[in-house]
Amino acid sequence: MAGRIVEVGKSLHARGWAPATSGNFSARLADGSIAITVSGAHKGKLEADDIMRLDPNGSPLEDKKPSAEAALHVQIYKAHPKARAILHVHSVPGVALSRVIKGDELVLEGYEMLKVFPGITTHETRLSLPLVDNSQDMDDITSALSSRLKDVPAYIIRNHGFYVWAESMSQAENLVEGLDHLLQCEIETRRISQ
Amino acid sequence: MAGRIVEVGKSLHARGWAPATSGNFSARLADGSIAITVSGAHKGKLEADDIMRLDPNGSPLEDKKPSAEAALHVQIYKAHPKARAILHVHSVPGVALSRVIKGDELVLEGYEMLKVFPGITTHETRLSLPLVDNSQDMDDITSALSSRLKDVPAYIIRNHGFYVWAESMSQAENLVEGLDHLLQCEIETRRISQ
Amino acid sequence: MAGRIVEVGKSLHARGWAPATSGNFSARLADGSIAITVSGAHKGKLEADDIMRLDPNGSPLEDKKPSAEAALHVQIYKAHPKARAILHVHSVPGVALSRVIKGDELVLEGYEMLKVFPGITTHETRLSLPLVDNSQDMDDITSALSSRLKDVPAYIIRNHGFYVWAESMSQAENLVEGLDHLLQCEIETRRISQ
Amino acid sequence: MAGRIVEVGKSLHARGWAPATSGNFSARLADGSIAITVSGAHKGKLEADDIMRLDPNGSPLEDKKPSAEAALHVQIYKAHPKARAILHVHSVPGVALSRVIKGDELVLEGYEMLKVFPGITTHETRLSLPLVDNSQDMDDITSALSSRLKDVPAYIIRNHGFYVWAESMSQAENLVEGLDHLLQCEIETRRISQ
Repeated sequence: MAGRIVEVGKSLHARGWAPATSGNFSARLADGSIAITVSGAHKGKLEADDIMRLDPNGSPLEDKKPSAEAALHVQIYKAHPKARAILHVHSVPGVALSRVIKGDELVLEGYEMLKVFPGITTHETRLSLPLVDNSQDMDDITSALSSRLKDVPAYIIRNHGFYVWAESMSQAENLVEGLDHLLQCEIETRRISQ
Repeated sequence: MAGRIVEVGKSLHARGWAPATSGNFSARLADGSIAITVSGAHKGKLEADDIMRLDPNGSPLEDKKPSAEAALHVQIYKAHPKARAILHVHSVPGVALSRVIKGDELVLEGYEMLKVFPGITTHETRLSLPLVDNSQDMDDITSALSSRLKDVPAYIIRNHGFYVWAESMSQAENLVEGLDHLLQCEIETRRISQ
Repeated sequence: MAGRIVEVGKSLHARGWAPATSGNFSARLADGSIAITVSGAHKGKLEADDIMRLDPNGSPLEDKKPSAEAALHVQIYKAHPKARAILHVHSVPGVALSRVIKGDELVLEGYEMLKVFPGITTHETRLSLPLVDNSQDMDDITSALSSRLKDVPAYIIRNHGFYVWAESMSQAENLVEGLDHLLQCEIETRRISQ
Repeated sequence: MAGRIVEVGKSLHARGWAPATSGNFSARLADGSIAITVSGAHKGKLEADDIMRLDPNGSPLEDKKPSAEAALHVQIYKAHPKARAILHVHSVPGVALSRVIKGDELVLEGYEMLKVFPGITTHETRLSLPLVDNSQDMDDITSALSSRLKDVPAYIIRNHGFYVWAESMSQAENLVEGLDHLLQCEIETRRISQ
C-alpha cells in the first residue's frame, strides 16, 4: 500500500493538485489500521518511509509524525465503514469558489459528471457538498462535519481544498478527477454568466 | 483495433478529456461490426479486454457490458456511412458553454480552425452544431438528433460533453483537438467580451 | 533540418499550439531554399517525408504539396534577410484577443517579456504587432502586410494564430513561448480589469 | 550544485514558469559564493556551463556574463543570511495581478497555502508581499526593496515575475509551486467576484 500511495502522490502532484507539501492521502488496511502520509512530505516525491501507520482512532503506530489532518481521515473512516481510501488535494477552482460562495454548502447541479459519485445515477441531481471553514484546530473541522458526513461523498474546506473517499484507491483517484472537473466546469460557467 | 483504442484512451485522458471513467470510443470494423469501450472502464487505463464488439444495431457480440452510450454510436454510424471512428469526450469549455447557451445549437463562426471539419474549406463559415439536452435514456438523445445528424460533423450534449466522428481514428483524434480548441477560443472570447 | 523541424513539431504540438493539422514551420537553408512542412500533416507526428523544399519564390522543388500558407513564409524571408526560421502556431489567447480587438494592431506594452523580441531591451516599450484579417487567399494577407513587415518581429492573423521568425530555429521557438506568454498575460489582465 | 540548478531549470520550464530565456536561479555555496545562471540561457535547456560563480558582492569569479538580475540575488542573500537558494520565475497570474493592483503590495489573505512560507502557521494570515515596479536598472529595484526585504519571504516585480528564496533548493521549488498556486487562486477568485 505504501507503494500505491507513493504512486498516487506522483500522479496527483503532476496534475497540480498537491503543490509544495500540501495534500495528504491514506488507505485503510485489512486490520483496520490506517496508512497515511507523514507531515510535511512533498506529495510528488514520496518514498515508502513517508507513509506511516495509525490505529483506527488516529494514534501513531510508528515513531513518526502523521499528517496534521489525520483526524479528518479518522473521522471519514468512522462515518463511512466501506471507505478504504481518502485523498485530500488542493484544487484552484475549489479554493476560488469557496471564497465567493457564502454559507456552508457548495451545490453542483445538472452535470453528467456527478455520476462519478457512488449512488448518483443521473445528471438530474442536485448535489450539496458540505463547505466548512478552515481551521488549524482539527476539532473545529470535525465538529462542523460531524452530522453532515453520512450521506455525502466529499467535502470542501474553504480556502483550502477538498476531501474525497472511496472503496478503493483507484476509485478515490477517479473522484479527484471527477470533482476537479466539476469545479472547473462550475467556475467556467460562472465566469461567462456574469 | 483494440490496441489503437487503448492508445487513444491514454492520449485523450492525458489531455484531460476523459476524467474518471467518462468518455467512450468506438471504431467500425471491416465487417460492419462496432468495437467499443465497455461500460465503466477508466479510459486512460484501458486494456484489450475493455474493448468489445457489437453488431451494427448495437447488440453485443460478446458477454460484456458495452458503454451506456452505445446507442449514440450506432446512430452516428447509420447516419454517416463513411464514419469509421467515433470519440466522445468531456470538455470543460464545452460543458460551460452548454450551460449558458439556451436553445438547441452551438454556433462557431469565423475561426480558421473550423477547417478541421470535413467539407469546410474557409473560416468564413457559420457552423451550427446540435446542442441537445442530456438524458439517461439514450432514446431521448437519439430522438432529439434523428433529423439533425446528416449534415453535421459533431454534436454537443448539454452538461455532458461532445461527440465527433471521422473516416479514421486519427482524423477523429484531430477533430477532438480541433473542436476543443474552438470551444476554448469561444469561451475565452466571451470572457473578455463582457 | 528536417529532423529539427520534426522535433519542433512534437514540442509545439505538446504545448497545445498546433492542434489537429494546424500550424506550419519552415527554415531557410544555406542555399536560400526553404524547407517547409507539407500541407495537411499533423504537426505533432511529422516524419522527414513531411518536410519539403521550395525555392525562394515558393515554387516547389519536390513533387509534394507545401503548406497552404507557404506564400506567407516566402514574404517573411524576403522582408527579413536574416531570418532563418519561421513558426506559425494557433494560440487560444491570440485568437480570443483578435476577436475582441478591432483595428489592425495588437498592442503589448510594459511587459518584461517584450525583451524576447530582437532589438527590444526594455519593458518600457509599446510594441504594436500587425493584426490582419484572415483569408483563404494568401494574396489578401500578403497585401495587408506588405508595408508593415519590415520593423516588426511577429504578426497575428485574426481568428487564426500568429507568425514569428528568427535567425535560428531555437530563437524562433523562444519567440513562440514568449509571445504566447504575453498574450496569456494580456488576456488574464483584461479578464480581471472589467 | 550546477547539476541541481540544471534539473530545477528543466522542471520550472516544463511548468511554464521560465518561457524563452526568462527566469534565473541561484544557490549560495558553502564558501559564501553564489552559483547563478548566466545571462541569456534558456532555463529549460541549461548545461553545467550555463552556471557560473559570483562572490558575495556579485563580482564574477569566472569569465562569463551572469544573469542581468544578479544584483537582486546578492541583495536577497545579504538580507536573509539563512537563504541558500533563490528562484525567479515568470508567472502569468502574477503578471496579470501586478497590472491591475496599484500600489506597492500584493496581499494574500486567508489561504491555507500561505503556510508554505516559513513562519506562517495558520491560514488566518494577511501576507503583504512587496510589489515593486520593474526597471532595467537593478539599482532602482534594490532601492525600492532595501527596507522591505527583511520580514518577507518573496516579492513581485510588476509586469515581470516573482522572486522566492529558501534554506534549500527543494524548499525554494516548493515556494514557487505554492506562490503560483496562491496567485492562481487570487486571480480566479477575482474573475468570479466581479
